[in-house]
Amino acid sequence: MNRMDAATLAGLLTAECGFHSVLRLELIECDAAVGRLRMALPYRDLYARRPGAKDYHGGILASALDVAGTFVSMLVTDRPTPTSSFRVDYLKAPPPGDLVVSARVLRAGRTLVTADAEAVDEHGTVVAVARGTWSVPPG
Amino acid sequence: MNRMDAATLAGLLTAECGFHSVLRLELIECDAAVGRLRMALPYRDLYARRPGAKDYHGGILASALDVAGTFVSMLVTDRPTPTSSFRVDYLKAPPPGDLVVSARVLRAGRTLVTADAEAVDEHGTVVAVARGTWSVPPG
Amino acid sequence: MNRMDAATLAGLLTAECGFHSVLRLELIECDAAVGRLRMALPYRDLYARRPGAKDYHGGILASALDVAGTFVSMLVTDRPTPTSSFRVDYLKAPPPGDLVVSARVLRAGRTLVTADAEAVDEHGTVVAVARGTWSVPPG
Amino acid sequence: MNRMDAATLAGLLTAECGFHSVLRLELIECDAAVGRLRMALPYRDLYARRPGAKDYHGGILASALDVAGTFVSMLVTDRPTPTSSFRVDYLKAPPPGDLVVSARVLRAGRTLVTADAEAVDEHGTVVAVARGTWSVPPG
Repeated sequence: MNRMDAATLAGLLTAECGFHSVLRLELIECDAAVGRLRMALPYRDLYARRPGAKDYHGGILASALDVAGTFVSMLVTDRPTPTSSFRVDYLKAPPPGDLVVSARVLRAGRTLVTADAEAVDEHGTVVAVARGTWSVPPG
Repeated sequence: MNRMDAATLAGLLTAECGFHSVLRLELIECDAAVGRLRMALPYRDLYARRPGAKDYHGGILASALDVAGTFVSMLVTDRPTPTSSFRVDYLKAPPPGDLVVSARVLRAGRTLVTADAEAVDEHGTVVAVARGTWSVPPG
Repeated sequence: MNRMDAATLAGLLTAECGFHSVLRLELIECDAAVGRLRMALPYRDLYARRPGAKDYHGGILASALDVAGTFVSMLVTDRPTPTSSFRVDYLKAPPPGDLVVSARVLRAGRTLVTADAEAVDEHGTVVAVARGTWSVPPG
Repeated sequence: MNRMDAATLAGLLTAECGFHSVLRLELIECDAAVGRLRMALPYRDLYARRPGAKDYHGGILASALDVAGTFVSMLVTDRPTPTSSFRVDYLKAPPPGDLVVSARVLRAGRTLVTADAEAVDEHGTVVAVARGTWSVPPG
């Protein structure tokens, strides 16, 4: 029985307190067999760098990409997988509007998962990419 | 006249809306001449990965380190300096309590600043390190 | 007139001294319009980590990926583009044999190119991936 | 009994074939207890980007930094520790002359070592910095 299924992941995103009460990601779909996942990040004023700016603080983008990589790693390993090392490249300031964040596993090893994530705006443009490694605790 | 002085940076951190109303960093000290900066990150329940956990979501750590690097880059260039590329390594889950986040410039070039940042817990242990590059817009 | 065309890039790879006399990459194809490039890395005993091992030193893989990213950046900008920041993730020890190294541009900005590169073994397995940024000098 | 001592590491650097016959690093000192190591990289014409340039190909710098991180990781874990993920930031083109490459361990975990490395020119200027993670195989 898989503990890390879509319902579990979706549940983690809807916390009423803690950071997920700020970062309101919504699971769109996930596939543990191929190691892929997509989430929506509907815009919230809390994400802005400056009051009224309708933009995204870089920390929100990094956080969303990190969560995407973490969740896809949990999905393929069926364990909690804390982030080990994480790189974000910001390609373009996102226009006002929502984002879609996706992640895919490059390699699932015994102690480490390597995964890519990207954030795409409403016009289909990739605004930020991330690559990282996630630790797999002993079974 | 320097636009990016301590008062300006401290002002950016105390926004009543947007992401800085969540991420409540406080400027401790900064030195534009040597390219160093220290900020406090007092613990808030909003930072937790899970309700009641008293821990830090990785996105909060990444965001605080990114802000530290961004601010020290703005300080030495006297310009807004958006993050270009950013790597975080998580060394240790922080214990319950506050953090101090510091940053220092490794190189300030014509179009790019390279800087390091780290987060230290109340026992003086480094819990996460970051290294990144920040874009310097044309003067 | 493009200075950084296939003939120029291929010429840089065939130096009779310097590091390209060690690292014997061969340009397979490149496309400046879409920002893609492929090179062959035929195995040489000089690449081994240990005498007789028929394996690849990590530095050889990193170097080949860095050259691929550098060349695709030169191709799309028509300038020399020194590497700014570069991340390699080693996914799998390559089996004995040759590699194909490819690169593609994620974003070509005014002062910085962001690109991905990967090395693939003879079975089509990705053995290492890289992501980096390359500096574009003023025109 | 420590297998990964100074004599073992120095021996790995003096191979008469394979990549260490190109990359001629020389161990200066190492300290397994504090997790530090220094090596010399005397200039060789084989390191040049272009014939006669007296400069350093980025791949040589990356390789030397990677070896420094790998060796300091082997030293503190007493195991072979393949590189997992590695970031290099090039700060300044090195002037003609030799380099000193040093590394230090940031964290030695059960399955992963995180370490920093840097290359310094003859004037004491840091020309490149690296940060990476190295895999620790099961004991």
